[in-house]
Amino acid sequence: MTGVEILGYGACAVTALTFLPQVIKTWKEKSAKNVSLMMFVIAFINEVMWIAYGVLQKDNVIIITNVIMITMCSIMISLKLKYRNE
Amino acid sequence: MTGVEILGYGACAVTALTFLPQVIKTWKEKSAKNVSLMMFVIAFINEVMWIAYGVLQKDNVIIITNVIMITMCSIMISLKLKYRNE
Repeated sequence: MTGVEILGYGACAVTALTFLPQVIKTWKEKSAKNVSLMMFVIAFINEVMWIAYGVLQKDNVIIITNVIMITMCSIMISLKLKYRNE
Repeated sequence: MTGVEILGYGACAVTALTFLPQVIKTWKEKSAKNVSLMMFVIAFINEVMWIAYGVLQKDNVIIITNVIMITMCSIMISLKLKYRNE
């Protein structure tokens, strides 16, 4: 594995965790008033595109990263809808 | 350009816009109480990694996408620090 590949895998691993702190924060505070629903809707759309791209390119790193992200994104959308104005 | 490449470019274009609705919402509401700072700190770190990866791979699409994202992410971090508890 080259240095560039390690950097790519590392970037994917960090990217996969991006939404986790927001999910935890919203879960704990039971409030998502200032959180943009549209941000997560756009993220959901782009993760669908990335998963399709990963499948077509047979790139498991892209698939796994974006399956994790779309899962967190879906949790966040449901939390946002639940705590919309709280 | 193949269909897969078009999908990849499309995914990058949508990804680049992810943080824009949150920036606009926070800017308008002057409040970011429920927004996770850690989410944007993680995003900042992974965008630095993606830019480095793009430079090493000489991939302009990755570089441009992540330069746009790191710019929005930096704006969002500064807005979050400004409106931390509001």
